[in-house]
Amino acid sequence: MTRTAPLDIDAFRRDLGDIPVEDNPKLVLQKSRDFYWYSPVLKRQLDHVTADLVVTPRTIDDVVTTLASAHRHGVPVTPRGAGTGNYGQAMPLSGGAVLNLAGLTKVVASSPMTVRAEAGAILARIDEETRAAHGAEMRFHPSTYRTATIGGFVAGGSGGVGSIRWGGLRNFGNIISLKVVTCEASPRILDIEGTDILKVAHAYGTNGIIVEAEVPLTAGYDWVDVLAGFDTIEDAVRFARNVALQDGMLLKEIAPIAAPVPHDYFVRHQKFIRKDQSVVVMMAAPQAMAALSIFLAHEKGEMLYRSDAASEEDLKRLPPAYELAWNHTTLRGLKVDPSITYLQTQYPDLETLKKIIALLGDEMPMHNEMIRFDGRVVFSGLPIVRFSTEERLEEIIRIHEDNGCLVFNPHRYTLEEGGMKRSDPGQLAFKREADPKGILNPGKMIAWENPDFDFASGKAWLFSGLQSAGAD
Amino acid sequence: MTRTAPLDIDAFRRDLGDIPVEDNPKLVLQKSRDFYWYSPVLKRQLDHVTADLVVTPRTIDDVVTTLASAHRHGVPVTPRGAGTGNYGQAMPLSGGAVLNLAGLTKVVASSPMTVRAEAGAILARIDEETRAAHGAEMRFHPSTYRTATIGGFVAGGSGGVGSIRWGGLRNFGNIISLKVVTCEASPRILDIEGTDILKVAHAYGTNGIIVEAEVPLTAGYDWVDVLAGFDTIEDAVRFARNVALQDGMLLKEIAPIAAPVPHDYFVRHQKFIRKDQSVVVMMAAPQAMAALSIFLAHEKGEMLYRSDAASEEDLKRLPPAYELAWNHTTLRGLKVDPSITYLQTQYPDLETLKKIIALLGDEMPMHNEMIRFDGRVVFSGLPIVRFSTEERLEEIIRIHEDNGCLVFNPHRYTLEEGGMKRSDPGQLAFKREADPKGILNPGKMIAWENPDFDFASGKAWLFSGLQSAGAD
Repeated sequence: MTRTAPLDIDAFRRDLGDIPVEDNPKLVLQKSRDFYWYSPVLKRQLDHVTADLVVTPRTIDDVVTTLASAHRHGVPVTPRGAGTGNYGQAMPLSGGAVLNLAGLTKVVASSPMTVRAEAGAILARIDEETRAAHGAEMRFHPSTYRTATIGGFVAGGSGGVGSIRWGGLRNFGNIISLKVVTCEASPRILDIEGTDILKVAHAYGTNGIIVEAEVPLTAGYDWVDVLAGFDTIEDAVRFARNVALQDGMLLKEIAPIAAPVPHDYFVRHQKFIRKDQSVVVMMAAPQAMAALSIFLAHEKGEMLYRSDAASEEDLKRLPPAYELAWNHTTLRGLKVDPSITYLQTQYPDLETLKKIIALLGDEMPMHNEMIRFDGRVVFSGLPIVRFSTEERLEEIIRIHEDNGCLVFNPHRYTLEEGGMKRSDPGQLAFKREADPKGILNPGKMIAWENPDFDFASGKAWLFSGLQSAGAD
Repeated sequence: MTRTAPLDIDAFRRDLGDIPVEDNPKLVLQKSRDFYWYSPVLKRQLDHVTADLVVTPRTIDDVVTTLASAHRHGVPVTPRGAGTGNYGQAMPLSGGAVLNLAGLTKVVASSPMTVRAEAGAILARIDEETRAAHGAEMRFHPSTYRTATIGGFVAGGSGGVGSIRWGGLRNFGNIISLKVVTCEASPRILDIEGTDILKVAHAYGTNGIIVEAEVPLTAGYDWVDVLAGFDTIEDAVRFARNVALQDGMLLKEIAPIAAPVPHDYFVRHQKFIRKDQSVVVMMAAPQAMAALSIFLAHEKGEMLYRSDAASEEDLKRLPPAYELAWNHTTLRGLKVDPSITYLQTQYPDLETLKKIIALLGDEMPMHNEMIRFDGRVVFSGLPIVRFSTEERLEEIIRIHEDNGCLVFNPHRYTLEEGGMKRSDPGQLAFKREADPKGILNPGKMIAWENPDFDFASGKAWLFSGLQSAGAD
């Protein structure tokens, strides 16, 4: 899809009627960004990316009107929640319109079992409502809980805090249904359920615009934030694995992080942490705290901080534990040392993990997130990488792969290269139906743009239409 | 401990004051029994066992008075909840007093996080209260949910419905605290927390009388009963394993049971089941039903019954799914064919399980309970055994052990032989403190009665004081 004629943005805009539109270039640039700059590779590739304008629908009908107009005039449309993704998920590679869904914020319905909310509803706000109404909360959330939207999480995320109990969004049963608007002459509003959910979830909005999501709830608690200290990262990961296997102790988050990351990057928690201490960040149900503190002592860990025993002052001053974990670990690192970056990995067992730790040492301070993956506790990884060159980064990835570890490359902006490195026929087929002109979030699905791309080539795919694509 | 003098039951009784006592031999015999008769071995050994009288305390103070008197007069005391155990846990091998705790029924305190109840509170009644107050319920219960007491469950049980999510009672965090009365000249009332819990829980009341238990709660749901049909037991166990590994689908119970057991023994469900069908009995959260029915179809299972689509008439007529599972499977079998018995086993993986199924065929129709065991999904087993001789039963046990499968022998009345086949130094040490005269539930702890017993001998231990023991 190469731009053959200048986009008729004016005609597109005229057909939007009174739907709010922003075209101030500075503001449009702001809303054309996410946290792609965690990656020096994506920073180089995507830094110039911006939309022509931002459309902010107030209702689902506004979304329908916008997509009809986009289809009519061939204007690319890239949906955006809060822009908290890390791989350019919400960045408009071909310009056109950013569809800012942050205006759709309603919690549509809830029960003790499930909640249905509009795409732009912020995760923490949804939980506030369901906790007040039912003592229940969603199963998981990213570390950007306080800003991220449910639509963005479902379209661009994979799991997070809670994944130690519930696996990932991709696991059957973790999304109940989605309401999706297609990009056609007369856009349809589809209620997607069952296995069809997997075609639309985590597709970056390339094959339909998610406007509502229904997800299951679980018991809500005042989770206790815990930092536990260990002399070595090996001790920390062993403890993290052991505590993750304790079926009777309800934890929502378990993240072992190697020294000196906790001391150096968790600035507001610094007084609790020695520089040479590796830390396991946890969130525990209040009724698990007695067992957890005994188990921790038994495993020779040190209780550095627990929010249920913290001073009023510390409670006011400190960010919640989940804002030390997942991609927030990297974010805190980047604030202290802008030269670092990170990887997304998975280690099958403790022995392999220890081998990688020994091989890469302080060039890659380890950061794991304990998760359930198809019913088994595994070490997911978000290690910090002290970045030198893109070549060395590729080498570190190869070292992982050579040792049987999965890498979900966060330095790629396509669905396939950041994921399982193969195309998803279900997602592709659904794009053919829902986005026949291929104007939804162009450049993110290789299977659509370049069906013959060889994922085994070892080369990154480059979207030829990057910032110059248009309607055909 | 051999009876050296006739028990001074009259003196014991005099010291009880107005605490209710029953000595009608028929009624005493009734309250001296549990479901030991599932086992032809225990039936032979224990059929004559009866107490001299039954004491029914109304308060914890009454328990203290009873134990002080028992200690003074050397009268054995065997605690009892609802008598739903299967290995003579509550049977008074040396006569004396049965301590009937069914009178202590109060729910002492509850929050959305935990509940504390007196020992004799019935499990289903506790959940009724916590569901009404907090929308929360206990993590697990045995199939005798509607009759068993929390004290009996903690003292004599190991897990059950809910173990697929929460492991077993032995797992740290699944019991918060216990209140225990010692058997001394001046009985103490101890609050037991932390690791000490393991000394008293699942000790059959040999080292202290549990009078209160505090356990964690989780979200309560109107669980949907599901029966899924498969052409072979191999298909059923594969499905059961696969669905147990689905992190996003909240199930509380998963039990594959080989044909013809479901058709032949689940009499009230018979119209739903073909004789040659193996069945997986499940309890699913309502919000998991959509995913579960799709997953079941995908795995080529047949939805035979789901309570959320059942007729009013069927709902009234049919027992809940959990009363088809765990030891209720055996109970239903015994009602149809009194010659059967059962085993308690554990299979490390699908391959080993299939091997045992192939080896024993219809002599041992397989019945598994999917559970989490130290963080891993495993096949626990409660297979039906078409009993011929005690020698053949031992042979079947050896076949298991030779193939690397654990057997928790339900044909033994001692803690050690029904469990890990070794003594528990913590339980023993606590008995020395809490029951210096050794009159609590005599004959159940080999470590106390016969410290030199060789568990590797391959021989069953026989309590020499069975029905003739007294105070020393």
